[in-house]
Amino acid sequence: MIQRVCIIGGGVIGSLFAGHLAQVAEVSVLTRRREHADLLNAEGLRISGRSDLQARVTASADPAAIPAFDLGIVATKATGLEAAAAAMAGHFPGATMMTTLNGLGAEEVVRRHGDWPIISAVTFMSGTRHADAHVEYILDTETWLGPYEDTPFARVQEAADLINRSGLHAQALPDLRPAQWSKLIFNATVNAVAAVTGLPHDPHFAAEAAPTDLGHLVHDLVDEGKAVAAAAGIALRDDPWQMNVLATRRGSAHRPSMLEDMEARRPTEIDLITGALVREAARHGVPVPLHTALYRLVKAKEKSWS
Amino acid sequence: MIQRVCIIGGGVIGSLFAGHLAQVAEVSVLTRRREHADLLNAEGLRISGRSDLQARVTASADPAAIPAFDLGIVATKATGLEAAAAAMAGHFPGATMMTTLNGLGAEEVVRRHGDWPIISAVTFMSGTRHADAHVEYILDTETWLGPYEDTPFARVQEAADLINRSGLHAQALPDLRPAQWSKLIFNATVNAVAAVTGLPHDPHFAAEAAPTDLGHLVHDLVDEGKAVAAAAGIALRDDPWQMNVLATRRGSAHRPSMLEDMEARRPTEIDLITGALVREAARHGVPVPLHTALYRLVKAKEKSWS
Repeated sequence: MIQRVCIIGGGVIGSLFAGHLAQVAEVSVLTRRREHADLLNAEGLRISGRSDLQARVTASADPAAIPAFDLGIVATKATGLEAAAAAMAGHFPGATMMTTLNGLGAEEVVRRHGDWPIISAVTFMSGTRHADAHVEYILDTETWLGPYEDTPFARVQEAADLINRSGLHAQALPDLRPAQWSKLIFNATVNAVAAVTGLPHDPHFAAEAAPTDLGHLVHDLVDEGKAVAAAAGIALRDDPWQMNVLATRRGSAHRPSMLEDMEARRPTEIDLITGALVREAARHGVPVPLHTALYRLVKAKEKSWS
Repeated sequence: MIQRVCIIGGGVIGSLFAGHLAQVAEVSVLTRRREHADLLNAEGLRISGRSDLQARVTASADPAAIPAFDLGIVATKATGLEAAAAAMAGHFPGATMMTTLNGLGAEEVVRRHGDWPIISAVTFMSGTRHADAHVEYILDTETWLGPYEDTPFARVQEAADLINRSGLHAQALPDLRPAQWSKLIFNATVNAVAAVTGLPHDPHFAAEAAPTDLGHLVHDLVDEGKAVAAAAGIALRDDPWQMNVLATRRGSAHRPSMLEDMEARRPTEIDLITGALVREAARHGVPVPLHTALYRLVKAKEKSWS
């Protein structure tokens, strides 16, 4: 029975989990910055938008000061994962760790630092950070969970149940990979194109009328990704092109995280997203010239301000 | 004998021609903006940098006010060519027109508006515009000239001689296409990559150490271009990859015009450069997926600020 949850990483996704789960469990938050932890301890955490919550949490930037927990939700940025996993090494026996990062490979990074059972997850929810202790809940879409290695499916279902009771939406799947790969292909395509063009995820991404329309490139990138998934033996849960078309029909255009990273001149998560797809493609001998090109363009763009 | 020259387009390249040629010929300048013409008539034109000149020119934004001339040098931006050629229609019998635009196809646009003999040219010189009447001459590299259709080669040589006497550097070639295509492939590659990454033409463009290094993409783009040239029966004058490597070894990184257009949020010349290459590729049945991708990314980026 999960009674104590620790959120590792106090970004948008971590805060959405922390604020909601604090309604149904004891929640601690392991932050990267000490002043962030101090503020959460003093003020609690506010969630606005699709939920309206004020949550009490125990926060610290020091793993030794985090109380024991049953479920750890790893919600760092890809660029902060290695440091967070290393900081947790040797702590929290008895915990199950759930990874919610974009891309592929977060589970392997966590495994290198401890033998906790691991739950794989992908989340489609989104939010906007207004302050260290205030996040707006924007898209109330699902988080999907599945077992990693020999984690019992019952534990995955228990975690999904808890998340659903908290007011968020979750689904436990016996095999997460079809969903994880659908999101990987979608993210590798949409994030990299947004980062390079400066466009939010708007109807240009689905436009295929004129030969120079961007939708052709998006479609070709999706097709490359699908060829890699097929070679890896993954039957995709959702068609990433359909995910793209549907997402661009929403009222307001989503700003993919890599676009925000670019505008803030931060390093992006490209290595764990497009990089993961390109590495899988190489492993299976599938050519992905367009994803490779976008990978190099985003890396070059990161260098343009250094 | 060329005694009177008209420069059509008062941008950087046009101003470099006007300022130098005014030392050895009567020079008029057809500008797009009337206040630009007024200023040139009042103050003349100053060239600094590799030359130090003050030139007297006759300028107007109205073709009817331009005195008769023997040689017209068309140096508009690609985006201004159609309007400039249309404005000249019906004027200047007896003139030879020389096109100096990037890409391919400027000659056809001029031909649609008059039956002047045409000289094709590509120029490698560069400069920086400090004011309407002051341009700095930066790279004193050559302009190459060749006959278009049945223009006599003697007339091409005469134009090249005049340019050389003016202090600029020119070379007359019996067939310009090998040089024009070398520059087309170089420009389609370097301009588009700079526009998308935000990088000036610096050593990143030649870096091929790590798999994600930008030089691999630049090399692949050059190879696509070379395949199109081969299919079109063009033996390139210079290898565009070598042009790229040499250019990145110069002291200070050149800022390609499309990068400057992007930063100023102006439409780029992509349709006449990458667009020309992609259209030639389609005509000859050569796949150019990477140039096509860059074409779509630049067009999408142009839409990101509209």
